[in-house]
Amino acid sequence: MNSREIQLTRRPTGLPTADDFKIVEVDLPNPKEGEVLVQNVSLTVDPYMRGRMVDRQSYVPGFQLNETLTGGAIGRVVESNHSDYREGDYVESHLGWREGFVSSARGLRKLGELRAPASAYLGVLGMPGMTAYVGLLDVGELKEGETVFVSGAAGAVGSAVGQIAKIKNCKAVGSAGSAEKVRHLTEDLGFDHAFDYHDGHLERQILTGAPQGIDVYFDNVGGNHLQAALNCMRPNGRLPLCGAISQYNATEPVPGPNNLANAIGSQLTLKGFIVSNYNERRADFMRDMTEWVISGRLKYRETVYEGIESTPDAFIGLFTGANTGKMIVNLG
Amino acid sequence: MNSREIQLTRRPTGLPTADDFKIVEVDLPNPKEGEVLVQNVSLTVDPYMRGRMVDRQSYVPGFQLNETLTGGAIGRVVESNHSDYREGDYVESHLGWREGFVSSARGLRKLGELRAPASAYLGVLGMPGMTAYVGLLDVGELKEGETVFVSGAAGAVGSAVGQIAKIKNCKAVGSAGSAEKVRHLTEDLGFDHAFDYHDGHLERQILTGAPQGIDVYFDNVGGNHLQAALNCMRPNGRLPLCGAISQYNATEPVPGPNNLANAIGSQLTLKGFIVSNYNERRADFMRDMTEWVISGRLKYRETVYEGIESTPDAFIGLFTGANTGKMIVNLG
Repeated sequence: MNSREIQLTRRPTGLPTADDFKIVEVDLPNPKEGEVLVQNVSLTVDPYMRGRMVDRQSYVPGFQLNETLTGGAIGRVVESNHSDYREGDYVESHLGWREGFVSSARGLRKLGELRAPASAYLGVLGMPGMTAYVGLLDVGELKEGETVFVSGAAGAVGSAVGQIAKIKNCKAVGSAGSAEKVRHLTEDLGFDHAFDYHDGHLERQILTGAPQGIDVYFDNVGGNHLQAALNCMRPNGRLPLCGAISQYNATEPVPGPNNLANAIGSQLTLKGFIVSNYNERRADFMRDMTEWVISGRLKYRETVYEGIESTPDAFIGLFTGANTGKMIVNLG
Repeated sequence: MNSREIQLTRRPTGLPTADDFKIVEVDLPNPKEGEVLVQNVSLTVDPYMRGRMVDRQSYVPGFQLNETLTGGAIGRVVESNHSDYREGDYVESHLGWREGFVSSARGLRKLGELRAPASAYLGVLGMPGMTAYVGLLDVGELKEGETVFVSGAAGAVGSAVGQIAKIKNCKAVGSAGSAEKVRHLTEDLGFDHAFDYHDGHLERQILTGAPQGIDVYFDNVGGNHLQAALNCMRPNGRLPLCGAISQYNATEPVPGPNNLANAIGSQLTLKGFIVSNYNERRADFMRDMTEWVISGRLKYRETVYEGIESTPDAFIGLFTGANTGKMIVNLG
């Protein structure tokens, strides 16, 4: 079996472009004893990958040039020489950006019986869903009746954050990047209030939806959203810091919020987190979230690109607002 | 009895000046039933008072013009019509900036038997000492063997932070504003490393003292110290945000740290706190700190001004580096 794969040809400066990537075709070997041959059916691209394209020290090692990129993928075992895997098994791996791979079982996770479409296990039932779940409930210590503001609310993480808040009997306010996304948040997902951040006046718009202020600000974007939120926090508020998408493409350091001193008087907690360090919560997450998804209480949307060759465009689209919900590349 | 008192004549812009204050003399009434007449013996001025001189919403109400300022004070009861107080009792109050007052017992705290000089109860055994204690141990969740960096390390709070760290078998690194203060920290107080922040290269200087990085950054100053510390934090580090003295006199918003996104990858927690919300720890604090002070394990210094009329100068001196340790006004 052949696998077409995407590699980085040079490190992007600012917004990535198609020329930063190339497609190569490799011949997959036959699986040896203890190995499986997997054909990917669904891939994901995520904003955090932009950080790994830079050559600097980070909490995950950087991507290397002229090596196949990696990322979340759902695949099916097509040939197994491993006693734990059978042909047809669905597996989750980090070997995305490619059509298939041969691997020892290390780094694979068997998904068991699928209770939702495969791609859902890359989104609402995968890392983004779990990021929302632990970020809001564990890092954010959300309590019943509180008010949540989430930026990037139409994204895979943000839309789950707002809906989990509603399920927990809290108020949900979200910001997004278009009128259609704003409509989606309030009409389809049940957010109490949403606004388009392009309209400016972030602080006023937050307070329109949350006149009494915010208890939890789930920060997906950093920058001026964080600064505005810091002016709207209630005493003892929590700010899970999940990502800083507005800064991923910055080529110079971005000034931080000029009102961080608010954290003192209002006793705020800003807490960065990485979802992979909350694995002890995985069983709770899968149980709750699967139930919410199946019952229709928690909805999700995907933006689907078709074919491995569309993966760079899907990735670039993350930074130009091309997606609503999880960005998926379907390999059919 | 007469009391000379200090009032604010106008709101300071930038660094306060003597012209922002005036001294008035008032006639104290005789204490009625349930009241006491107190003569202050020791007053304190603190950086946080600068914030209260501004006319804006804050966690403590602002000072009013042409009213006597308030602040920590230790006094002696000279006449009592209250059954709980006797002549000669020492009391702690917030009725500083004046020579004496008549008061119902509300807001007074009896100090019991003094085990240290009266002024110590305004410093190492008072609010600054307790700020260091709960900020480091509760907010900072300090663990044995960790490394602490504290800015403003020669101040009343900072010097206690470093010494508590040492008592807890941790490494202590501090920054201060003069070579003499740096010498004091390492030679007198047992800090492992200290440096003068005027020498620049904050990050390099922190790492000289803590090559493996910092577990707890106790932030007394904000600004470029916070930004430098954010580049030196170890994974899961904690940053108690205690004050932002470098910003108290700023007339425009100061840009925040441009590297706050480090908090995500390194899972850092920045947590603002107000000491008065940790009153449940007061008994622990008084027990531990008194023992450490009496045994000589925890040293403190005071800068003493004499006479009520020197109080404005003492206060202004907080922002010009005039003090080492707690700034005290002795009313003899």
